[in-house]
Amino acid sequence: MTEVHVLGTGMVPFRKYPDKTLADIGWPALREAMLEAGVRGADINAVYCGTALGGMLAGQRVTKVLGLSGMPIINVENACSSSSSALAQAWMAIKSGACDIVAVIGVEKLTKFGGGTLPLEKEDWEVNQGMVMPALYAMRANRYMHEYGLTDRQLAQVSVKAHDHGALNPNAQIQKRVTLEEVMTSRPVAEPFTLWHCCPTGDGAAALIIGSPAAARRLGRGSVRITASEVTSGKYTNGYRDMTYPELTVRGAHEAYEMAGLGPDEIDVAEIHDAFTIAELMYYEAFGFCERGAAYQLLDSGATSLGGRVPVNPSGGLLSRGHPVGATGAVQAVEIVRQLEGRIGAHQVENAKVGLTHATGGGVAGYDHGACSIHVFTT
Amino acid sequence: MTEVHVLGTGMVPFRKYPDKTLADIGWPALREAMLEAGVRGADINAVYCGTALGGMLAGQRVTKVLGLSGMPIINVENACSSSSSALAQAWMAIKSGACDIVAVIGVEKLTKFGGGTLPLEKEDWEVNQGMVMPALYAMRANRYMHEYGLTDRQLAQVSVKAHDHGALNPNAQIQKRVTLEEVMTSRPVAEPFTLWHCCPTGDGAAALIIGSPAAARRLGRGSVRITASEVTSGKYTNGYRDMTYPELTVRGAHEAYEMAGLGPDEIDVAEIHDAFTIAELMYYEAFGFCERGAAYQLLDSGATSLGGRVPVNPSGGLLSRGHPVGATGAVQAVEIVRQLEGRIGAHQVENAKVGLTHATGGGVAGYDHGACSIHVFTT
Repeated sequence: MTEVHVLGTGMVPFRKYPDKTLADIGWPALREAMLEAGVRGADINAVYCGTALGGMLAGQRVTKVLGLSGMPIINVENACSSSSSALAQAWMAIKSGACDIVAVIGVEKLTKFGGGTLPLEKEDWEVNQGMVMPALYAMRANRYMHEYGLTDRQLAQVSVKAHDHGALNPNAQIQKRVTLEEVMTSRPVAEPFTLWHCCPTGDGAAALIIGSPAAARRLGRGSVRITASEVTSGKYTNGYRDMTYPELTVRGAHEAYEMAGLGPDEIDVAEIHDAFTIAELMYYEAFGFCERGAAYQLLDSGATSLGGRVPVNPSGGLLSRGHPVGATGAVQAVEIVRQLEGRIGAHQVENAKVGLTHATGGGVAGYDHGACSIHVFTT
Repeated sequence: MTEVHVLGTGMVPFRKYPDKTLADIGWPALREAMLEAGVRGADINAVYCGTALGGMLAGQRVTKVLGLSGMPIINVENACSSSSSALAQAWMAIKSGACDIVAVIGVEKLTKFGGGTLPLEKEDWEVNQGMVMPALYAMRANRYMHEYGLTDRQLAQVSVKAHDHGALNPNAQIQKRVTLEEVMTSRPVAEPFTLWHCCPTGDGAAALIIGSPAAARRLGRGSVRITASEVTSGKYTNGYRDMTYPELTVRGAHEAYEMAGLGPDEIDVAEIHDAFTIAELMYYEAFGFCERGAAYQLLDSGATSLGGRVPVNPSGGLLSRGHPVGATGAVQAVEIVRQLEGRIGAHQVENAKVGLTHATGGGVAGYDHGACSIHVFTT
């Protein structure tokens, strides 16, 4: 199978855009990616659009504005992994030789729900019992604190780091630093989380143009390749489940590393799914950046901050850059590609050669009926 | 690239299931397909689930009931083509060699919307102006009647044929014949359509297990192959558009015939998108079963009825078997596979060797931001 190159990237600043349509949020991201790649609509063999809550034919609505037409347009939904799953399908379309150039879009408009809790599936009995995302991650946090002696103060440090990074990113939804004190005294959401432990809701879009080696040569683009593309779903286990152990991500990371032929020591920069502060710590461990229980020590050492050994979420992550559900996977990819191309601006990770993205969503404790998608990018 | 075999099929009778969850509608179809194929969950490398309005992580919710876990599960949305687009993605996964055995699910529960008009996208200005599906197809019908002298009475004949077929299909939502008089005097919906010119809303699910030649040999299954798999989107044209000419389907049919290496004369049976009576007539022409303007003559000759040269919608089609949006593409495939295997029962087409399915949706006049998916099946 062939290699897969990234030819262009685009995004719109993550904000609240209550007065824009989904299409109007999405098309500028796609246009930017097409201009970067130097492709026209007629060059694009297929479009994959990820959205979780954007409604029917989201990809068609976005592409229509730019006059793209006549190619297969496939809309992919996988909760928080929607546009990373779309990227995985696009990757397969190139990898298999079926397509030469493919567009990937992630787009979401959460403001249409008026803010607050998203319309989760009422049929899910766990959701019906109140097991919405803040509650789920709060349970994980409590268990982690119990197991490893993590304190409130230490957990809050994740948010401080995220906002330190996001303050440097003009595309972030929250471009402001917060102090440890501010995190700890903001309004309670689900113990131990206060407001600043939680990602905001908002709107956004991101897009990539990916293609074959032949397309990359022709366009004089494509210094970054996608060397692993992985989508997994949760495994079921009877009896005791360790809520501090995100089996879905552990397994996905393992498979992605194997596909890319490398390991955690070779990752220079990562955009991972820090929907809540505890998530970032758990996923440090899942990706093998440190041993289990040692995540706070890794954070505290500065290794995962800009300038450290493996900066995690230099964009600000979900906590600060924002998390318009279906757009997140695509924007993570855009961030990492621009990092590896050395052109991202104030939150640049110096000399980054290998990066990864991680979007995971759905399901209780991430085990049940969820989706996790991981990509590795290499210069 | 390799060939793609159908290893198993499943469906639930199309009905209204207001008291069942989406998952409970879906899992029996998947289970039946798995039992037919003789595969367990661990044999399935990936799952593609098509749903238009089923909400987040529909595929995960359906597979969870059967304990399937740990594989990639991708949810695909493309309005009426949702599960045929899912089938196309699954087909690519096998075709490319990426997967050995893949499950495809189509599932929808329209009764959750309480009947009547579906929640179309308010952002679409054409929808906002009242251009919902019955209105759109009614405009097409009026134009077709004007152009070709088709009469109300002739148009109603499509519904009579559909219900003649559906009355033979125990899985059809409406298993009752209707007379020409009943069609013409049922309550008006959008001129020239009365109620019996329109497909019902309802619930349903269908599933397929598809696989590589190696999987087919191993399981002793797979006499039917999928020899073409096509997804297209609408093209934009300025100025006059001929509403009697479904360019999207014409182009898709052309590409599908080319991929399968055959033409309309070789099609023995077809399940096409007769959401409204006029649709069936227009699509006869789009698939080359007759010349433009000659669709009624083809119908009237009996060629497209059971026992005719190319029976169309022996299942009853959308008009009689029903149209739970996201389930339609998958159920069409199940129907055609069972036809080619000669085991479908009272609505069997004798000696059918080649069949096709066609699901198309979205967009004004089928030109704009729509999706059309066509598959060819060969013994």
